[in-house]
Amino acid sequence: MDPFWHIAFEEAKIGFEEGGIPIGACLAYKDRVLGRGRNRRVQLGSVIKHGELDCLENAGRYAAKIYRKAILYTTLSPCWMCSGAILLYGIKKVVIGENRNFKGPEEILSQNGVEIIHLDDEECTKLLSSFIASNPELWNEDIGKI
Amino acid sequence: MDPFWHIAFEEAKIGFEEGGIPIGACLAYKDRVLGRGRNRRVQLGSVIKHGELDCLENAGRYAAKIYRKAILYTTLSPCWMCSGAILLYGIKKVVIGENRNFKGPEEILSQNGVEIIHLDDEECTKLLSSFIASNPELWNEDIGKI
Repeated sequence: MDPFWHIAFEEAKIGFEEGGIPIGACLAYKDRVLGRGRNRRVQLGSVIKHGELDCLENAGRYAAKIYRKAILYTTLSPCWMCSGAILLYGIKKVVIGENRNFKGPEEILSQNGVEIIHLDDEECTKLLSSFIASNPELWNEDIGKI
Repeated sequence: MDPFWHIAFEEAKIGFEEGGIPIGACLAYKDRVLGRGRNRRVQLGSVIKHGELDCLENAGRYAAKIYRKAILYTTLSPCWMCSGAILLYGIKKVVIGENRNFKGPEEILSQNGVEIIHLDDEECTKLLSSFIASNPELWNEDIGKI
């Protein structure tokens, strides 16, 4: 298994164990992990710490030339906010665990030169779908619905 | 002066006094301030706390029905990340102090039903332009350039 994908999925599982929304991410540069993170709406009462943004925040400040060669791994198709962050910082490659539970504006990423790799991971899909089934209101809050 | 705009600009000025990038925001709902914030890249070493996202984070967790009737005031045209947050949460109206120093994907906001009001405020434009002239590297880092 790709070690960076393993970290992203591990973050999702840590989030689940904390009672949070199980979505995780990992930012890789060459053979290094720059950052890892998970959705922390529940844990921190945060509306901006989606998995991808928590990961970018934990990675810290980098110049654009680093982001441009970095790869963002995320367990779920990035929402508008996280897609926007990918475009802001010029991240050129995103590995997505699944987009069955939620699909963000992937076409906007593609149109702006971002390469997307879909893993369509079954275990990852099940982790989030079971969470959504048990926590529909929390899920809708996280994706700005209802 | 619109009191919510006043708060957004005040936040930008507080940021400037702190040595930070002078961009501020305010989220209003009816006659109430839900949140206020400012760019805190310098102050917190944050890559996600642009003015608008800091403001949303400070406002806290709300259901989509609140965001849909809220107005986001920001001193600068929202970048991709902050525009994405506006779309994620379904904020329908954005008041922008200026877009001379930087212009985000305003057409994406418009295409997705967001009403944009431009103030083209001279004092606000000058505050940021003078900061950029003195801190070009920091500015480029914040907008993902170079």
